[in-house]
Amino acid sequence: MSKKIIINGTIITMDVNNLLIKDGAVAFENGEITYVGETPNDLTTYTEVIDVKGDYVIPGLINTHGHASMSLLRGYADDLPLQQWLEEKMWPIEATYTKEHAKWGTNLSIIEMLRTGTTTFVDMYDNMDEVAMAVDKSGIRARLCRGMIGFGSEELRQSKLDEASNFVRNWSNQANGRITTMMSPHSPYTCTPDFIEKIVSRAVELNSPLHIHMSETKAEVELNVKEYGERPVKHLEKLGMFHQPTLVAHAVHVEDWEMDILAEYDVKVSNNIISNLKLASGIAPVPEMLNKGITVSLGTDSSASNNNLDLFEELKQVALLYKGVHNDATLIPAEKALQLATIHGAEAIWLDHQVGSIEVGKQADLVVINTKQAFYQPAHNPISHLVYSGSGRDVKDVYVQGKQVVKNGQCVTIDEEMVIFEVNRLSKQF
Amino acid sequence: MSKKIIINGTIITMDVNNLLIKDGAVAFENGEITYVGETPNDLTTYTEVIDVKGDYVIPGLINTHGHASMSLLRGYADDLPLQQWLEEKMWPIEATYTKEHAKWGTNLSIIEMLRTGTTTFVDMYDNMDEVAMAVDKSGIRARLCRGMIGFGSEELRQSKLDEASNFVRNWSNQANGRITTMMSPHSPYTCTPDFIEKIVSRAVELNSPLHIHMSETKAEVELNVKEYGERPVKHLEKLGMFHQPTLVAHAVHVEDWEMDILAEYDVKVSNNIISNLKLASGIAPVPEMLNKGITVSLGTDSSASNNNLDLFEELKQVALLYKGVHNDATLIPAEKALQLATIHGAEAIWLDHQVGSIEVGKQADLVVINTKQAFYQPAHNPISHLVYSGSGRDVKDVYVQGKQVVKNGQCVTIDEEMVIFEVNRLSKQF
Repeated sequence: MSKKIIINGTIITMDVNNLLIKDGAVAFENGEITYVGETPNDLTTYTEVIDVKGDYVIPGLINTHGHASMSLLRGYADDLPLQQWLEEKMWPIEATYTKEHAKWGTNLSIIEMLRTGTTTFVDMYDNMDEVAMAVDKSGIRARLCRGMIGFGSEELRQSKLDEASNFVRNWSNQANGRITTMMSPHSPYTCTPDFIEKIVSRAVELNSPLHIHMSETKAEVELNVKEYGERPVKHLEKLGMFHQPTLVAHAVHVEDWEMDILAEYDVKVSNNIISNLKLASGIAPVPEMLNKGITVSLGTDSSASNNNLDLFEELKQVALLYKGVHNDATLIPAEKALQLATIHGAEAIWLDHQVGSIEVGKQADLVVINTKQAFYQPAHNPISHLVYSGSGRDVKDVYVQGKQVVKNGQCVTIDEEMVIFEVNRLSKQF
Repeated sequence: MSKKIIINGTIITMDVNNLLIKDGAVAFENGEITYVGETPNDLTTYTEVIDVKGDYVIPGLINTHGHASMSLLRGYADDLPLQQWLEEKMWPIEATYTKEHAKWGTNLSIIEMLRTGTTTFVDMYDNMDEVAMAVDKSGIRARLCRGMIGFGSEELRQSKLDEASNFVRNWSNQANGRITTMMSPHSPYTCTPDFIEKIVSRAVELNSPLHIHMSETKAEVELNVKEYGERPVKHLEKLGMFHQPTLVAHAVHVEDWEMDILAEYDVKVSNNIISNLKLASGIAPVPEMLNKGITVSLGTDSSASNNNLDLFEELKQVALLYKGVHNDATLIPAEKALQLATIHGAEAIWLDHQVGSIEVGKQADLVVINTKQAFYQPAHNPISHLVYSGSGRDVKDVYVQGKQVVKNGQCVTIDEEMVIFEVNRLSKQF
């Protein structure tokens, strides 16, 4: 039986009772953490001892909203107004997408995420079997859903609903439990109320949580009021969505009373701060949501609107932006920002019993940061250095479920060169 | 005679007439660029051929405001209100600083800057001989000034003025021309009007440009009005400062009519976007300043308030923030953001005849980015990838004045391990 131990690390556990362990160790066996504490004197019981010599060890980061397939569109269109970007650039290309695009786009995204310390991600798109297979092979962890846009015929909607339901049936708890699923109406502006209600009842039948885009732009909120007489939060509440566990992406344009509704139903939020800035959608009220006890987590959205999947950048942005916007340097301190990307991320996708912190009994999703670099000196405060000075590029080794997936900065489960070749071959057709 | 040529690069020249060259080459000799164009067939005249195989080649980035010595305080205090941060944390420690602190702090900062593609930086601090010696040895380029805080006795002020003047006399155009200098009253709130006037006349005598902190916080502007009856821009104009070439750092709280004054005198601005967010100072009106034709460049400020010196992060932040704040996704597109960090940086410190773009006759300050990575795929748009997806950590090789200073991501002119040892030894006393 393989019993591994990482020793001599600066362990940032994200367990509030035991946040930081200097000269610390983490042991794991069968993919599960069996010991967290000081480096033990006796190491003879371990089959492998990994001496990280002072490097930081953190729980794998959790990216709670994205569309991995879309990485083929990175840099294809930037600096455009949202509607022009969507209607003239994104949608025409996405309409030509095949399973092959989904496969290679997802592999490209998984390489990026693993190499920058993300070990769990949420994905909402189509061709989800391809996404799930890529997750399975790469060794990453994911909560996946077939996003349903409700345009078109009743038959088309029904077939999407069946496809989404089958995806949940086929893939939940597959890949040694690394894959979990959701049901996902794309948004209130792309799904009619009755289609959302159908999806919600199906989610109840399947005992599945829900994921949806909500209140990303001001225009979308205004449209919702015009069409349905309510802002999106109240609209979705009325449709019964929030009685089922729900993760909403964006929640940029939510008023105080709407946050009260989100808090009341324990609706989880994925904040996509960089994508929201880049698309000029606005700035979500993250400090206010946190004050109301809402679980706020971080998502990159796709690399078409970010344009990378490095959660370290979201971390730093969330720690910086609100200070400047609200003239308060104490807002979202470094430790809180890191919580958003780890333990709150786990809570947002109902996996906090498994991941999000380094604790005995949780899964061994671990990231080692190379801190023997100028950026991490002097050694005043590891959490500050990680958030304000670090970069996803400093990730050295990554383990998911105890299995090494990144070694010395290189992804060992996917052939990066081949993926680069394939995504360029496919994107030449755009 | 050494004649080098970089071949097969994606050359991002920042020369508007010839912005992007695929399969391009840059040749240099005696530290100067002698050829920019397609990769030539005949390479026999070159003593060294460097094949970068598609990697991007960009002009070295220019960091127009900082305090390199302060890197010893990285992560020493974060998430605090500005006055508490300054008065309880920064100033007490800085008061204990010796030449040794300046030496090792500066070396740490230079490693960070070189490794993330910055080849020219501005520094305002004391113990500037130490800073200049570190610049000389490391091979980086810098415009340096002894920042003068006017508190204390008349004798103390006079001795600072003499020290600053001697620094200009001793170090201008030293280190094979890599060092240039300025005269620098610290700020309108730390220097009395007559001290500023004295410094300005000395700058005229020395034919030296000027550098000053200005309008960083709202409180500072209000204090200026209370003490001197004017906001800082008008105050400095009245003191005759802007008749001499001047670079102001921050310019966060400037009104429309104040920007007109800055434009009228061609006052250069160093925008410190991340430091301004982190210290909750506010958000400078960069799009408005650009509209008025003001030269806006980027600075990191010190790593005590940033907390790193990676100009790629400033680049991306300036391209993102204004879109979100002003609800306009077309504001500060990728190319403009890159101009701020390159050619506008050079203009801001009056070195645009030498650096800031890859052009024949300019200095060979060149940065090679490793783009054979997922983050730069598919190969749609190099400038977008560099700004929105890239990281300073992707810098592979750096040349200043044609001399290699970073090789495969490692600084070859400074011993990073020794510097890490020394900064930790020194900072243990804090």
